[in-house]
Amino acid sequence: MKTTISKLEKFTNDSAQVDAAAIQPLPNSRKIYLQGSRSDIRVPMREISQSDTATSQGVEKNPPIYVYDTSGPYTDPAASIDIRQGLPPVREQWIDERADTEILSGFSSSYSRERLSDPKLMDMRFHLKRPARRAKSGANVTQMHYARRGIITPEMEFIAIRENQRREQADLNGEGLLTRQHPGQGFGAAIQQWITPEFVRAEVACGRAIIPANINHPEAEPMIIGRNFLVKINANIGNSALGSSIQDEVEKMTWAIRWGGDTVMDLSTGKNIHETREWIIRNSPVPIGTVPIYQALEKVDGRAEELTWEIFRDTLIEQAEQGVDYFTIHAGVRLPFIPMTAKRMTGIVSRGGSIMAKWCLAHHQESFLYTHFEDICEIMKAYDVSFSLGDGLRPGSIYDANDEAQLAELKTLGELTEIAWKHDVQVMIEGPGHVPMQLIKENMDLQLKYCHEAPFYTLGPLTTDIAPGYDHITSAIGAAMIGWYGTAMLCYVTPKEHLGLPDKDDVKDGIIAYKIAAHAADLAKGHPGAQIRDNALSKARFEFRWNDQFNLGLDPDKAREFHDETLPQEGAKLAHFCSMCGPNFCSMKITQDVRDYAAQQGISEAEALQDGMAQKSSEFVDKGGELYSKL
Amino acid sequence: MKTTISKLEKFTNDSAQVDAAAIQPLPNSRKIYLQGSRSDIRVPMREISQSDTATSQGVEKNPPIYVYDTSGPYTDPAASIDIRQGLPPVREQWIDERADTEILSGFSSSYSRERLSDPKLMDMRFHLKRPARRAKSGANVTQMHYARRGIITPEMEFIAIRENQRREQADLNGEGLLTRQHPGQGFGAAIQQWITPEFVRAEVACGRAIIPANINHPEAEPMIIGRNFLVKINANIGNSALGSSIQDEVEKMTWAIRWGGDTVMDLSTGKNIHETREWIIRNSPVPIGTVPIYQALEKVDGRAEELTWEIFRDTLIEQAEQGVDYFTIHAGVRLPFIPMTAKRMTGIVSRGGSIMAKWCLAHHQESFLYTHFEDICEIMKAYDVSFSLGDGLRPGSIYDANDEAQLAELKTLGELTEIAWKHDVQVMIEGPGHVPMQLIKENMDLQLKYCHEAPFYTLGPLTTDIAPGYDHITSAIGAAMIGWYGTAMLCYVTPKEHLGLPDKDDVKDGIIAYKIAAHAADLAKGHPGAQIRDNALSKARFEFRWNDQFNLGLDPDKAREFHDETLPQEGAKLAHFCSMCGPNFCSMKITQDVRDYAAQQGISEAEALQDGMAQKSSEFVDKGGELYSKL
Repeated sequence: MKTTISKLEKFTNDSAQVDAAAIQPLPNSRKIYLQGSRSDIRVPMREISQSDTATSQGVEKNPPIYVYDTSGPYTDPAASIDIRQGLPPVREQWIDERADTEILSGFSSSYSRERLSDPKLMDMRFHLKRPARRAKSGANVTQMHYARRGIITPEMEFIAIRENQRREQADLNGEGLLTRQHPGQGFGAAIQQWITPEFVRAEVACGRAIIPANINHPEAEPMIIGRNFLVKINANIGNSALGSSIQDEVEKMTWAIRWGGDTVMDLSTGKNIHETREWIIRNSPVPIGTVPIYQALEKVDGRAEELTWEIFRDTLIEQAEQGVDYFTIHAGVRLPFIPMTAKRMTGIVSRGGSIMAKWCLAHHQESFLYTHFEDICEIMKAYDVSFSLGDGLRPGSIYDANDEAQLAELKTLGELTEIAWKHDVQVMIEGPGHVPMQLIKENMDLQLKYCHEAPFYTLGPLTTDIAPGYDHITSAIGAAMIGWYGTAMLCYVTPKEHLGLPDKDDVKDGIIAYKIAAHAADLAKGHPGAQIRDNALSKARFEFRWNDQFNLGLDPDKAREFHDETLPQEGAKLAHFCSMCGPNFCSMKITQDVRDYAAQQGISEAEALQDGMAQKSSEFVDKGGELYSKL
Repeated sequence: MKTTISKLEKFTNDSAQVDAAAIQPLPNSRKIYLQGSRSDIRVPMREISQSDTATSQGVEKNPPIYVYDTSGPYTDPAASIDIRQGLPPVREQWIDERADTEILSGFSSSYSRERLSDPKLMDMRFHLKRPARRAKSGANVTQMHYARRGIITPEMEFIAIRENQRREQADLNGEGLLTRQHPGQGFGAAIQQWITPEFVRAEVACGRAIIPANINHPEAEPMIIGRNFLVKINANIGNSALGSSIQDEVEKMTWAIRWGGDTVMDLSTGKNIHETREWIIRNSPVPIGTVPIYQALEKVDGRAEELTWEIFRDTLIEQAEQGVDYFTIHAGVRLPFIPMTAKRMTGIVSRGGSIMAKWCLAHHQESFLYTHFEDICEIMKAYDVSFSLGDGLRPGSIYDANDEAQLAELKTLGELTEIAWKHDVQVMIEGPGHVPMQLIKENMDLQLKYCHEAPFYTLGPLTTDIAPGYDHITSAIGAAMIGWYGTAMLCYVTPKEHLGLPDKDDVKDGIIAYKIAAHAADLAKGHPGAQIRDNALSKARFEFRWNDQFNLGLDPDKAREFHDETLPQEGAKLAHFCSMCGPNFCSMKITQDVRDYAAQQGISEAEALQDGMAQKSSEFVDKGGELYSKL
């Protein structure tokens, strides 16, 4: 962060460069692609290879482990990465083939045209040659619209393959390991079957899942958000008036997806919001979300009361034609709910919520987001932008959790969901906030009830207010729980929450904490195959395959660094102990020795222990010294 | 950690010194003492003072906040700290007055006598002048024994005052703030009343809580572990054969209690275990636990099969006369359970469990810990050492969670609890380990059932295996949940878990993660007054009292450091925004402005919004620019 301000001054198109750290493949990992029914459906996965297990009977092979890969072409050595060119438009052909969009001769937004014609911005602008698209007059280009007409799009097939990876692996490699798969409690009967393209279609058609995929963001690899799929995580990035540059924000995005961000929200509120967003979208293989009211407010110099529907509408179109995949719209902050926040400990803590509250009070009118909701739907369906209905009245403290204001807004979001669905526009619902553990399930259950099972997308929740500097942890607790209870996507919280703008390190810390929460939720829900990675890592740990243990983890670099602090020698990667306990006290080593002893006797360990134990035990003692201390 | 080895060589009594960082009072904090019914019952608390709130009507005072304080005399500027002298024996008079102990003329343990007479150890030894004590022949000196005879000890009164601090505050200061105290789900009816000395006595008498308080550790400030009290946390420290020194370990202890460790376990398995422990106990104001089998194993040079009851017994007496407050004893690892671990993913992962399994196999005999359990009880009651019945068969991976071996051992621990209680010996039960979220409650419920409500003391549990380097987070999730469900004490996990020996930084990271988990559990259980600190911090946050926000948090240093990365100027501590959003986008500022507007009008905000809204709103617009951007 110390260099932020200087970068802010210096950024130009010429100087733009990819973060070198973001394009190294992860250790012992290889990018592979699974092909679908057509050659341009190429679904990325990360293959992590493992070393062999040496046993007394010879070598046992350990299969490679395949994990969901959000990092896009960046970790593919075969891809040439130039952020001034942007990523290849992998979905362009599919959009084209549907023949329901038209190529625009220029931007429909007056603000976009203004920025494009401003010569002062020439140097910092991303130079996109591809023109924007829009639905043909009268057409609806949402994935939900296709799904409801029974069409399985290439996006849906891509997603089915992507979500199935671990399930396939469970069937192919994991048999023995999965016999103790614990029964989960979160999935319906459907998910216990294969995730088929038809299943994806059906979930999107009924609104239980969304595919955020703007026709102007063809660079994005399709992904799905819904509670019958893997739990996803979002990373918030973006500058503020006090810091960061375009270069910084692109780096945060590539860093976030490297460690597992499924979507990224650009929450910029500082300088050059339009250009910053363009750089991010053109280089992002994951869906990008925004909160358009932030930029609209900048257009009126921060004076909320001067916001108008026209300015907001132009902002929606501006961003939709850039390719934003989902918009947070705080249309549930209605005038009559604002007094409900008066007795709160922390009032309104959502930026968008407070802006709209201010507008409503100044005009003593119902919010224009609410009154123009159907107009907004018309824009959404012309580009396939998904709603992320904002929780402008979310609780900002434990004291305010699940209060009247929060629940009144949640009900309204449910009503708006029905309106959006009437237009076949995709919807997810944003949630808290700060909520103590005993109230989390109530919040989730009410969301499902009020919002007709539209996917829930929650920030945390933070389970206590008393740990500024550690809110990635206070909130990972709540996130894991609400993910288990049914939340489809978890919005990360970084250690800087409440204190400052996150830098790259904070982004990574937030992502890892949330990957933990999302994965813990997948395990608890009983997602088929989720446990494979745990099993593989635990087996590697038990067998002292140190490098495999590092590489199978969420952060191989950190695991290796911690291990090497005390045992840096490469030979220690083969040692049957670590500095935590030392050789004599390593329980894994002792258990291993017991197993090896049994194997040497040519019998199973259980037999060794149960049959003829007395006789075996005397042999055991005879050979004991050697068996236990030198193996 | 890099300097560990050199310190190991150099440590001498002369060079021993307190960690300067551990004796600074925390910012804006003052150590105060509440006096009980006699002048030597002085219960420590930390008073955090707050700055005033400036309102348009003048100055509003914010009351000081009182928090439970584990840091002992170290944070008291009035105390003179010299670790070569140790802490003052605050309980000595109480023990003396009971007149049921005798002063020993020398150590009862032959090993202790050996170490004491070894001239090579002279330089590194802590020179304790006070002789050891033991119960008079036939006497039982446990707190449980007193409790069952209806005696309320000074320790119990001390604890009642200590646990009540926040409750008192709730009644005295917090009225308004607590009206939205959320109903908790964890406490029985009793706790909804005041925690009286009689309540403490009754909980100890029935075994639902323990007071770990060895008569040879009079330096310790009494504390209680039970699910009708605040959730406690333990920090593991200790050297290994590969690193750390006595100086390092004392520093880890003082560091752990500074940040909130309620007890500390010395798990040393390296050099000079006896002397290291002595230095730790003499300087510890919190109870110290150990796993005596570790030292016993060192006495037979790491050869488990050579362990004997006699060696183990001498080790128990050695440690009991030093003042260890609780012993982890893996007496539930029975011979017939060992084959149940054969098909596990990760076998036996407890060090003590694997040592005993190895012994059982080598001898094909039932564990001597099990067969001599009543003999062990006799030792425990002569010094008031509490049992922490070890979970030697805890699961080391998600795959192994709640399996046959784990539950068979848990049942046995319940049987052993009944035997210990027959002797009026205090007992808590250790628990997992690695457990996915959906199995945590089952584990807790079975523990309550099998172990007759003896307090549960769990390591984590880790809710996934895939994040080495971040297991403080994987486990804080499980710890918060199991704390809510009824676990009385949470054993921390540091980021180094599975990878190496924790250093001071790791100790702090582990402590903070576990303070978060324990506090989240207290909130969820509805502990009276737990929410006061959340409310005070949130109010400070909302009012932009930055220093108060930092100081009320678990780690004021880190919060300030994060804030100052982008806004280091002292003036920014008064700013009504931070670098996260900048001035225009600060929702707290906007809400504040709305409230201030209402206050200026001399009406409540709710009225402002509900009555005469149209008229007010036009005034609002007239003054708008000024109200919103300059207040």
